[in-house]
Amino acid sequence: MEKYVPAPARAVFNLLQTNFTADAASWEGKCIISVKQFGLESLAKLFEVADEMKKLVKESGGDQRLQGRLLATLFFENSTRTCCSLQAAMLRLGGSVVSVNETTSSVKKGETLQDTIACLCSYCDVVALRHPQQGAAVQAVTATRRPLINAGDGVGEHPTQAILDVYTMVSELGGVEGKVITLVGDLKNGRTVHSLARLLALYACELHFVAPPALRMPEDVVRDVTARGRATVTQSDAFDAVLPRADVLYVTRVQKERFEDAAEYEALRLVYRVTPEVLARAKRDMVLMHPLPRVGEIAEDCDDDPRAAYVRQMENGMVVRMALLALLLGKA
Amino acid sequence: MEKYVPAPARAVFNLLQTNFTADAASWEGKCIISVKQFGLESLAKLFEVADEMKKLVKESGGDQRLQGRLLATLFFENSTRTCCSLQAAMLRLGGSVVSVNETTSSVKKGETLQDTIACLCSYCDVVALRHPQQGAAVQAVTATRRPLINAGDGVGEHPTQAILDVYTMVSELGGVEGKVITLVGDLKNGRTVHSLARLLALYACELHFVAPPALRMPEDVVRDVTARGRATVTQSDAFDAVLPRADVLYVTRVQKERFEDAAEYEALRLVYRVTPEVLARAKRDMVLMHPLPRVGEIAEDCDDDPRAAYVRQMENGMVVRMALLALLLGKA
Amino acid sequence: MEKYVPAPARAVFNLLQTNFTADAASWEGKCIISVKQFGLESLAKLFEVADEMKKLVKESGGDQRLQGRLLATLFFENSTRTCCSLQAAMLRLGGSVVSVNETTSSVKKGETLQDTIACLCSYCDVVALRHPQQGAAVQAVTATRRPLINAGDGVGEHPTQAILDVYTMVSELGGVEGKVITLVGDLKNGRTVHSLARLLALYACELHFVAPPALRMPEDVVRDVTARGRATVTQSDAFDAVLPRADVLYVTRVQKERFEDAAEYEALRLVYRVTPEVLARAKRDMVLMHPLPRVGEIAEDCDDDPRAAYVRQMENGMVVRMALLALLLGKA
Repeated sequence: MEKYVPAPARAVFNLLQTNFTADAASWEGKCIISVKQFGLESLAKLFEVADEMKKLVKESGGDQRLQGRLLATLFFENSTRTCCSLQAAMLRLGGSVVSVNETTSSVKKGETLQDTIACLCSYCDVVALRHPQQGAAVQAVTATRRPLINAGDGVGEHPTQAILDVYTMVSELGGVEGKVITLVGDLKNGRTVHSLARLLALYACELHFVAPPALRMPEDVVRDVTARGRATVTQSDAFDAVLPRADVLYVTRVQKERFEDAAEYEALRLVYRVTPEVLARAKRDMVLMHPLPRVGEIAEDCDDDPRAAYVRQMENGMVVRMALLALLLGKA
Repeated sequence: MEKYVPAPARAVFNLLQTNFTADAASWEGKCIISVKQFGLESLAKLFEVADEMKKLVKESGGDQRLQGRLLATLFFENSTRTCCSLQAAMLRLGGSVVSVNETTSSVKKGETLQDTIACLCSYCDVVALRHPQQGAAVQAVTATRRPLINAGDGVGEHPTQAILDVYTMVSELGGVEGKVITLVGDLKNGRTVHSLARLLALYACELHFVAPPALRMPEDVVRDVTARGRATVTQSDAFDAVLPRADVLYVTRVQKERFEDAAEYEALRLVYRVTPEVLARAKRDMVLMHPLPRVGEIAEDCDDDPRAAYVRQMENGMVVRMALLALLLGKA
Repeated sequence: MEKYVPAPARAVFNLLQTNFTADAASWEGKCIISVKQFGLESLAKLFEVADEMKKLVKESGGDQRLQGRLLATLFFENSTRTCCSLQAAMLRLGGSVVSVNETTSSVKKGETLQDTIACLCSYCDVVALRHPQQGAAVQAVTATRRPLINAGDGVGEHPTQAILDVYTMVSELGGVEGKVITLVGDLKNGRTVHSLARLLALYACELHFVAPPALRMPEDVVRDVTARGRATVTQSDAFDAVLPRADVLYVTRVQKERFEDAAEYEALRLVYRVTPEVLARAKRDMVLMHPLPRVGEIAEDCDDDPRAAYVRQMENGMVVRMALLALLLGKA
């Protein structure tokens, strides 16, 4: 129980030391805030550890390497997948979990996010934060004395989702370089696709952003992606034209809560609905993905198609988070 | 992390393979949906394992046989007893728990129950589901890739409660054959007594259903029980006449939430209240049971009577669920 | 799984056997309800075990001495710090946790607190209760068959908070005897300071209670403290006069929820705000404490001052609770 090192100094330390490398030591004690912290080398390392975790889960369910280590999950927004997979990841490595959500936290009594983070750092070894406000994760980093994982902050970032998505593409296709990756649906409001596009920009792939005019990918994301100079970007609303060439079809939910006009939502929500008929026109070895939850964008009678990868995508979510926890806690 | 086997094929597999036997291998990987899956032989096996668990808890609190295994509890309705005893059962065998309830699930975002189940199966090794709608457990089975335990679905079934109740009778009396078992209270709305009556129908016992005319046991339950040809059934509202012969007195709560008329509820709720005076007229070795919570049907000054078995009944709830988890996960 | 011993007999047993000594055996199986159960000898023993726990956490994060033991946390009020530190304490010693709160308990169905406690005792080895009503912990003791920890009951007691506060003073200063300890803020409504003052009365220290006239320490607390004949008590509202001599400055939140008049709350809430300017007039080795959450009583730019002990205070909360759990479960 070391003496308390003042927050600001720590924060700078944490945020600057983001040059993760293939050396596992470069990950220990760090925070995961943004996809901007990752490069090709660090992703390759992470995916290598994730592969080991996948093998471990298959063979024995897990091990005890994080025995005596505690994860705090601090979720101010619900998220079955992100929260449960983080908890399962910690538990499968022999660690334990303390869970705090909006209704059980002291924020109601007027406590700042920073003080709540400082509190959890007093009891736990790593913290995962989900928050409805963009920038909350960076704010939290100024108060943390432990590795902190941004598990989604409003319309900001959701780095572990983007990482597990790229890991799924790599697992399914053997690699992302040279592939045609089509993101479809609400590209304007979907935090997931923003982080994902930025991460895919590291690879020389062909990105297609397909959305109705009202829900197009924000300009700053497109700019960031093209500025990398590796991936190419094409934008359109013509799903049918793009479909036959896609190696990956990444479908997202149109988020009802973002629309003021119910009629507009209804008009758009199933504009790119994927059905067995749609799949009949896609490549035979295409990968169909969705961050879930879905509300009809992919018909349930697609689930038995071997190209439907969204269940494997969830399983990958757990093993990627196992890899991250092991790396951040120095036990990879 | 095996390839995803399509849901329908799995579901049929799971539901058909319900001929549990005395061979522990016949339980592994199965779902527990209905008391209809159980016969005398399988109950005897389960009770044998439960006895071992009771001994284990008494001697050492538990063991580590389910280390690395995860239970997901998905509760869309509150239930202190069922949820806590399932969690405690898993933890006492060295396993871990991921807990999801209505307020933390993605169902609010419009996700189907099946997709939520598929999600939890991606992270966990066994799932327990509590749901307010009858039939939810069967629906969930169509999506599960892991053993699933129906922890109560509306006015449908609650098989583990019925099993622990019969186990308690067997533990207290040495057996159920030939015994006089009296179920008292709201037999119309109580899911618990429906599952229990169907399970007791396996034994050559004497069943008395005592309820006010408005709250009698549904006809289909009575028909199912008598159709077995083993137990005899008597129905009445004359508690006093039946009491002196009862070997088991199983009291249930009149459920306020089922009444539209508050006055009718008040008139019925304590019609069969058990007090020390009532117990004075019962057999000296009778067993007094209640699934709890109680709201006055059994006076608190009965608690010190050695016939009051409802605390031991709760303890049995945990050991029966330990036995079930061990059997379903191949570690009995 | 022993036969159920009737509640009243147990309760008397538990409450009378409160003469904790330096012998660890005197703690096993007991309930922690009130600071009145503690004397100098028992506190010294507890602090000795807490020191060992602090060393253990620093060196290895914890151990497995409570493997197979379950803690139930039953919280009818939120409390991030108390609940999380109890859970973390149990987990770091290899135990497990079952968590129940108001929204997941059967109290909504009309169950009594005693029945809920009896339920949790059927599954778990130790219970921690937080309740909004004074006296709830004593009520719970009448139903418990396991060690029970009062984790705060309304305006009643919060013994583990008071203990961790005294432990922090002892850790920071080497001892409390002869020290000047100043409690500042809302001394009327703050349950924490009532328990703390009563516990500090065991030591020959100089207590200063500083509060606005409307928020003074209740007379019965002052009477109890002075009746001990060891500590001296001075009361005033003149913070500036007292500040330079303080060895400990213990600041509390003015609790908005206790005021009917918002203007009165606003007038009082920051009357003793601690800032770097205030700290400049305090002793160089003073200890600045706060039970947290804070809502401005201590400015955030005090956090880097080495005298700011509130983060170490939280860390001490966990190790003190580790010590208590180990002692109550016979594993210290």
